[in-house]
Amino acid sequence: MKKEKPLLLLSNDDGFDAKGLNELIDALRGLGEIIVMAPDGPRSGFSNCFTTQVPVHYKLVRQEPDVKVFSCSGTPTDCVKLALHKLAPRRPDIVIGGINHGDNSAINVHYSGTMGVVKEGCMKGISSVAFSLCNHDLDADFKPLLPYVRSITEKVLNNGLPKGICLNINFPNVPVFNGVKVCRQTDGDWIKEFVPCSHPSRENYFWVTGEYKNFEPDSPDTDHWALDHGYVAITPTKIDVTAYEFMDELNSWNL
Amino acid sequence: MKKEKPLLLLSNDDGFDAKGLNELIDALRGLGEIIVMAPDGPRSGFSNCFTTQVPVHYKLVRQEPDVKVFSCSGTPTDCVKLALHKLAPRRPDIVIGGINHGDNSAINVHYSGTMGVVKEGCMKGISSVAFSLCNHDLDADFKPLLPYVRSITEKVLNNGLPKGICLNINFPNVPVFNGVKVCRQTDGDWIKEFVPCSHPSRENYFWVTGEYKNFEPDSPDTDHWALDHGYVAITPTKIDVTAYEFMDELNSWNL
Repeated sequence: MKKEKPLLLLSNDDGFDAKGLNELIDALRGLGEIIVMAPDGPRSGFSNCFTTQVPVHYKLVRQEPDVKVFSCSGTPTDCVKLALHKLAPRRPDIVIGGINHGDNSAINVHYSGTMGVVKEGCMKGISSVAFSLCNHDLDADFKPLLPYVRSITEKVLNNGLPKGICLNINFPNVPVFNGVKVCRQTDGDWIKEFVPCSHPSRENYFWVTGEYKNFEPDSPDTDHWALDHGYVAITPTKIDVTAYEFMDELNSWNL
Repeated sequence: MKKEKPLLLLSNDDGFDAKGLNELIDALRGLGEIIVMAPDGPRSGFSNCFTTQVPVHYKLVRQEPDVKVFSCSGTPTDCVKLALHKLAPRRPDIVIGGINHGDNSAINVHYSGTMGVVKEGCMKGISSVAFSLCNHDLDADFKPLLPYVRSITEKVLNNGLPKGICLNINFPNVPVFNGVKVCRQTDGDWIKEFVPCSHPSRENYFWVTGEYKNFEPDSPDTDHWALDHGYVAITPTKIDVTAYEFMDELNSWNL
């Protein structure tokens, strides 16, 4: 019989003081011991980037019963790696990323620092779940999500996830959800990705921005459709990205 | 009939002046018009990170017949996005990442900036290929690879790649290869990922490092096995990372 409380490792890409992360802590209180290792500032779009050119460092910023919050100079991926390194030999029972301020569905899975957290946890063999709300506001209203966040976390703690599979869970920005849908990743792309940035004396400076274009808006099995129609979208996500279906054809190329 | 020469867009994560990139340019000379947009310094481990907190900028650093080299302040992913934005409306026929100084097989696919280049090209609907040599030396010997790099590039230009699938091609660090193998991504992990970094007055500073641990060293269908046995490893890689095989079970959880 397991004597210790479950250990929950939390991180995000919006920084340790983001509202979404602090609402996540409150939503999970009581489920176990919570350790947060989160970036010391915004790291949106950091994917699975890790730091190689400078040292990374961390410090304790807050402590209360069953909750410790650390901030880290590195990326979301660094945060998970460093927390696991410093917490060893006790392994977390779950790694949770979020709650992100913004949509991580569709191809955003490849750019998201929140999914960087969760893919890192998954690669370490720990059940890992990302929660994101389709609202970028610093002061977004996370209340409608919180009962779902707690209940899904409990189910993942009880059932576990298969090796190499994590969950990318996105919530539409509505006060009441139509339900929960298990989805596939939507095909789409970002367009209009740059706007000029004026510089007092130089040329060719740009801000990265963009508009998301959904290539299959009428496919009800996709995560973007679910979000557009008021459903919570759960997209199970793999670490093995081999394109098995193309191996035979590639073999016929005689490379 | 197509009148224009093929347009090849090259980038990497080692920087515009890296030996691997410059050997790549030489290996591809004559196949078409080559545009390079590469980071202005090392960006190893940058995955699909893109820049949101500061502007990105670029400049022309070298020009010769059919070759233009630009350096960019941003990430490998920024480089591809910015090149496509500035080159529009003419689309490249291929996006090539590399030649990377270091192994991008197995789970390195998730951290690699070189694969960030190639996944970005693939998400834009362009045939995209990463070349990497299992040797981190700045002065690594790329000569044994170059005929393969050219011939594979020609085949991809002729055949194209299916939508949403790119190639992750790794070369063992040997003078003669045993052949070419189409592989799946190896299961493994990084261990011992931090070493302390002394700081004159503060604690908890670390360098990220690590040792790769192969969880299936005896599986001849994996990319790491191929590299360990002197083969060129070609791992076809997908953008759709949905874990379809877990959807039924997840639906049974009644989330």
